[in-house]
Amino acid sequence: MTSPLVPGSTIGILGGGQLGRMLSVAASRLGFKSHIFEPSANPPAADVAHRVTTASYEDQDALKAFAETVDVITYEFENIPTSALDLLETLRPIRPGREALRISQDRLIEKAFLADLGLAIAPYADVTDSTSMTAAVEAIGAPSILKTRRFGYDGKGQARLKSAEDAAEALAEMNGAPAVLEGFVNFTCEISVIAARSADGQVSAFDPGQNVHRDGILHTTTVPAKVPAKLQMDAVLMAAKILNALDYVGVMGVEFFVTPQGLIINEIAPRVHNSGHWTQNGCVSCQFEQHIRAVAGWPLGDGQRHSDVVMENLIGNDMDRMPELMADPTCALHLYGKADVKPGRKMAHVNRITKG
Amino acid sequence: MTSPLVPGSTIGILGGGQLGRMLSVAASRLGFKSHIFEPSANPPAADVAHRVTTASYEDQDALKAFAETVDVITYEFENIPTSALDLLETLRPIRPGREALRISQDRLIEKAFLADLGLAIAPYADVTDSTSMTAAVEAIGAPSILKTRRFGYDGKGQARLKSAEDAAEALAEMNGAPAVLEGFVNFTCEISVIAARSADGQVSAFDPGQNVHRDGILHTTTVPAKVPAKLQMDAVLMAAKILNALDYVGVMGVEFFVTPQGLIINEIAPRVHNSGHWTQNGCVSCQFEQHIRAVAGWPLGDGQRHSDVVMENLIGNDMDRMPELMADPTCALHLYGKADVKPGRKMAHVNRITKG
Repeated sequence: MTSPLVPGSTIGILGGGQLGRMLSVAASRLGFKSHIFEPSANPPAADVAHRVTTASYEDQDALKAFAETVDVITYEFENIPTSALDLLETLRPIRPGREALRISQDRLIEKAFLADLGLAIAPYADVTDSTSMTAAVEAIGAPSILKTRRFGYDGKGQARLKSAEDAAEALAEMNGAPAVLEGFVNFTCEISVIAARSADGQVSAFDPGQNVHRDGILHTTTVPAKVPAKLQMDAVLMAAKILNALDYVGVMGVEFFVTPQGLIINEIAPRVHNSGHWTQNGCVSCQFEQHIRAVAGWPLGDGQRHSDVVMENLIGNDMDRMPELMADPTCALHLYGKADVKPGRKMAHVNRITKG
Repeated sequence: MTSPLVPGSTIGILGGGQLGRMLSVAASRLGFKSHIFEPSANPPAADVAHRVTTASYEDQDALKAFAETVDVITYEFENIPTSALDLLETLRPIRPGREALRISQDRLIEKAFLADLGLAIAPYADVTDSTSMTAAVEAIGAPSILKTRRFGYDGKGQARLKSAEDAAEALAEMNGAPAVLEGFVNFTCEISVIAARSADGQVSAFDPGQNVHRDGILHTTTVPAKVPAKLQMDAVLMAAKILNALDYVGVMGVEFFVTPQGLIINEIAPRVHNSGHWTQNGCVSCQFEQHIRAVAGWPLGDGQRHSDVVMENLIGNDMDRMPELMADPTCALHLYGKADVKPGRKMAHVNRITKG
């Protein structure tokens, strides 16, 4: 794929959750159709998609049929089974590319990649069994966090060690999954950069957002971040370095810890990111449009911030606040169309305009 | 329907063109599903709708089945056959209501309604045959414009009279359709107000836009309009008067001629309006969201303008300009997903941010 996709082309999206939903809407603005591939029935993205395939990632026939109807393939989550990617990449371009997925699917590989780039990360050690766990605790110390190498999200697959005595219990929580012990970072706050890179190498980063988590799930993102301009610039440059190193095409989220010694990268996500939702009401081109522009081979749009925003996730029973939120003119609502409210389930987000 | 529709409810939309498409996207943001009713196959709105019914407005079974799946019915165009409305209104609320449709479907009734409200309109006369045409030309004079009472849009169904001698030819162009002869208004420019009214009577108007037409089709809308603040306020108050008089629920477009003697109302449209597309990139709540909020019984959102915008329609071969437009970061693109480019066909619009 060397020239920009023409309007009327179809973007294939792996995953039909809220990120797929908002990617699909952005695709429609640019005249593209979207085809969602999602194992579960009635996913949020189905309400705004041209077409939906309901099938497992093990269903090679369904994957093949899906690929043949689309012009390019992208995804809303990084944990796509390798076998599916192996098949799909023979049929259509996958953007962002396989290398970004390979790295971000495995915390150990991701950390080695970031360290190789000379970027600051927390001290870490590979943990596969009790012997390596003992060595890791000796090297990293406590407090520290044991995390599965793969399939972790929203704080899942993690166990904290307050002291070295918690080692055995933490290891047991991994259920035998390969893990990484991370040194605990004493940070003053967390920020993230959502950056986009086009097929021809143009990079555009949104203003860094300041993130607050609750129970391991993102609670709010505030822009502008209350962090010195120098550190914000550092964060943008570090994100750009990662994108360029990967010859990346699409939007990436990069999370940072802000410490007295500077920035430490927490993790990267090769996709649109919850902490970039503020861009829907803070910029002309939101993260979803930048991602679609990039994967379609288009130039990037304008990611400059025109408003100050506090994004808040509405999780589970937060939906009880809808009557108040729908009446508040400072609140731009973004609901995901999920039928069942469950504890911990991301149902919607609200972008509160704090300065227009 | 007395309480606000809950997220997950379905908005029925009559008409699947670009307005239905953008209404459908706005509905999804608020957690609603949309069900499009449209006679033609593969309409623009289908790409972003939960469900589509492809059937004629004469198909009473299809209309009934459609109504039974939705919670409220709205529309993207005013010329819906009365028989369809008669059936639908027995099954579900129609918003905006029948009275707004009755008035706006017929230029003669619309003019009488506006005159009764004490609002300034161009002089007009009813024309049904050559006798009434002669009387109308005598009363109104020339230059003037003969327009069909029903089904006109984008300059269709209109004939200009440069002098009284053009009367017979103009009448012939009506093909026997009842018509109205309008006195020619010597205006300096055209503006329009897009105003919303909620089910509980709250009114919110967007800033007036200044419109330029080409070949009878809207070419650009510019905000802010280069018209004195006093006239802009007059326009908003006149729009509010119309909405309140109709106990209107939803968004309405009101077009004005600006003359040295003040504002003269050209016409009203009981729906989202091409001259309100700038709100997608100029406001937190665009006209599509305000309309969905109103018909869903929600409070209105924030329609304040945060950016200056020039909206331009991309018609027919204007799509050849896509490479330049997609590379221009000041341009927010909105494509309609229409497969075939035809002369005079609205394919897309671009909101150029002139001051953020």
